[in-house]
Amino acid sequence: MTEQKPHVVIVGAGFGGIQTAKLLAKENITITIVDRQNFHLFQPLLYQLSTSVLSTDDIAYPIRAFFHHNPNVDLFMAKAEGIDTKRKVLLTNHGELSYDYLVLAAGATTNYFGMETVEKNSFPMKTLQDALHIRNHVLHMFERANMQEDEEERRRMLTFVCVGGGPTGVEEAGALTELIHLMRREYHNINFDEVSVKLIEATDKLLPMMPLELRDETVRVLRKKGVDVMLSTQVADCDGERLVLKGGVTIPTHTVIWAAGVKAVPLMTTLGATMDRADRVIVDKTLQVPGHPEIFAIGDNAHFEQDGRPLATVAPVATHQAVVCAKNIKILMQGGQKLELFAYHDLGSMATIGRGDAVLARGNFKMSGFFAWSAWLIVHLMRLAGIHTNIIVTFKWAWNYLSGMRLGRIITNIDI
Amino acid sequence: MTEQKPHVVIVGAGFGGIQTAKLLAKENITITIVDRQNFHLFQPLLYQLSTSVLSTDDIAYPIRAFFHHNPNVDLFMAKAEGIDTKRKVLLTNHGELSYDYLVLAAGATTNYFGMETVEKNSFPMKTLQDALHIRNHVLHMFERANMQEDEEERRRMLTFVCVGGGPTGVEEAGALTELIHLMRREYHNINFDEVSVKLIEATDKLLPMMPLELRDETVRVLRKKGVDVMLSTQVADCDGERLVLKGGVTIPTHTVIWAAGVKAVPLMTTLGATMDRADRVIVDKTLQVPGHPEIFAIGDNAHFEQDGRPLATVAPVATHQAVVCAKNIKILMQGGQKLELFAYHDLGSMATIGRGDAVLARGNFKMSGFFAWSAWLIVHLMRLAGIHTNIIVTFKWAWNYLSGMRLGRIITNIDI
Repeated sequence: MTEQKPHVVIVGAGFGGIQTAKLLAKENITITIVDRQNFHLFQPLLYQLSTSVLSTDDIAYPIRAFFHHNPNVDLFMAKAEGIDTKRKVLLTNHGELSYDYLVLAAGATTNYFGMETVEKNSFPMKTLQDALHIRNHVLHMFERANMQEDEEERRRMLTFVCVGGGPTGVEEAGALTELIHLMRREYHNINFDEVSVKLIEATDKLLPMMPLELRDETVRVLRKKGVDVMLSTQVADCDGERLVLKGGVTIPTHTVIWAAGVKAVPLMTTLGATMDRADRVIVDKTLQVPGHPEIFAIGDNAHFEQDGRPLATVAPVATHQAVVCAKNIKILMQGGQKLELFAYHDLGSMATIGRGDAVLARGNFKMSGFFAWSAWLIVHLMRLAGIHTNIIVTFKWAWNYLSGMRLGRIITNIDI
Repeated sequence: MTEQKPHVVIVGAGFGGIQTAKLLAKENITITIVDRQNFHLFQPLLYQLSTSVLSTDDIAYPIRAFFHHNPNVDLFMAKAEGIDTKRKVLLTNHGELSYDYLVLAAGATTNYFGMETVEKNSFPMKTLQDALHIRNHVLHMFERANMQEDEEERRRMLTFVCVGGGPTGVEEAGALTELIHLMRREYHNINFDEVSVKLIEATDKLLPMMPLELRDETVRVLRKKGVDVMLSTQVADCDGERLVLKGGVTIPTHTVIWAAGVKAVPLMTTLGATMDRADRVIVDKTLQVPGHPEIFAIGDNAHFEQDGRPLATVAPVATHQAVVCAKNIKILMQGGQKLELFAYHDLGSMATIGRGDAVLARGNFKMSGFFAWSAWLIVHLMRLAGIHTNIIVTFKWAWNYLSGMRLGRIITNIDI
């Protein structure tokens, strides 16, 4: 009788999930990655898909392509719907998977904070499909405005609102103004005074993770680019025709891009563990779920306190946690007791705020402008999966930088 | 009072439509291109999108990007639904457009020859969306088969049938076998003896436009690659679970790709002109629609007899007809009477039958194998729109040729 190999089930093929699988792939175990999609998405560049700089295949990498040489790693393409911790089984819409170890790395989804009209009538910006919807919609709005004779309706079509002053909202608003700048060459009948991009933020500053100086710099640069930055402004309602602000001001628009918050995927609520307000599981220092030594939660699924506050839901945290998670699973499989404790070494943060401009902070070091942007480019290129992709994205960025052209302006739906 | 400029309306942004617009763009006229999509599609490479070699943006080029420097050329993104020749008005789902000259270059659509079950349950291969559906579906079938325990159902999922032995069917079948070859590395649980690609053709040969010798060569090469080429075989029915052949043989499959025929778009039937069986308008030697000197039909919309038979519905014919069409419109605008007569100089034809293999014929000259394939690559690269695209496609082809990798294996729908 052969001994059954331990089965590690990893939910989610984001930064944390892929990294965990890679680090465990050489062990004498079976690994199953469960994901609704067949690709790893490079989320930090999602805004470039939505604004026609890059295309689908540039930021999505087939999960199986990572594991050519690892016949013990398989993908189970399904939606994880629940966890039965007693039977050690993951429930999916394509049946059950039993596990010896379970890694919850399923990422986050958009948080509308209970506002149903906003959920129904705004565009989220979290998945590949979300970004394609935004791209199709924005390009449609220009085509429709180009043949619209009523000025009020035309202005409504040409008003683009991003909600949320974090990196996603800031990068999306910046990239949209640049896309629109390019549109000037091609929509000869549109009066570009009627076009506007607005960025709405509830607090009085953008980019919460940045030092004060760079936060002010970001507002200044975006405004100079033509973004109408509206600080200390809260959203009350959204019906697809207009956005209503708290206080009663109304912005007529068909386009509200919602980047105001995320929460962990609903799967986490089936675990029965203690969670924070954003549905993240409060994990031990070993990244285990309290009471379930065989279940780990990492990345956007984990609430890990350090220096008195939870770590941010960003890719470097997930990747770093994957290293400790994989190490601890190995220790457990070898019958070890003493697990490694996780501690995050902050690598700093960065955000692009336009073509040739970014902000970057690491510890006390701060930088903005062209050199920060160059650093941003290099770091993102290095982290993209696959040399093939690196070369194509480098080429597209160079072409975009030199010519201002964006050839991804393809409307893929035919809902006209 | 300023004189009203003549208005040329061009229906369709395919090879014929774009070429006509380019040739007329410098005249003192207004040009409106009407298309349901906002891009020009490079149809000869559509099969490469459906088999994950290239991505959307590589074979679709924004229509407006052709006309940066021509403020007199505009796009009207709408579906052309009818022609009112008395009022000289084109009817669309977004209102009417009056014209002085009308160019019908709206291309073709899939012809099911009245077989409703086939239309409902097979995959057409004519638009960008069609190719994306096929890509998503084929990749889904592999993911589903990978977790399917019933052998009969698994074989059904892994049987891929192309119907139609023209270039589209041949190229699709060839590219599918190569995609499947790559899958061997990644689906460690699938028994590839259960996978099959079939190519069904009603006559006893493939590639009707080719000399006999190359037609036999094509069958030989495809069979060597593992394609089950079924000649003299006709389709009777298709229900999504099985394909029924005339004579009663049944092939269990979820995937029937229909490349067996095309006909002109339904718009042509609203013209009230004499048409052939494929809904193409029988045009004069000047490419005008008889009785309507201000209306031209070109490419897949025109039935033009030469040497006793109608010209093939291929890109070179459309592009060449656009030249004569544009010239004749200029002559008419200048009050001229003597229009140019169209005559097609056959440039030959070519088709890829695999990685590193193609067939090519021009007059009495015939060629197959690696050099024919190299010629195919160069001709197609030269015809692609935009230097940017040329460079990216060259790179992707080189990468694909050298490594066998296809990174476009991204399932973009989330219908699991």
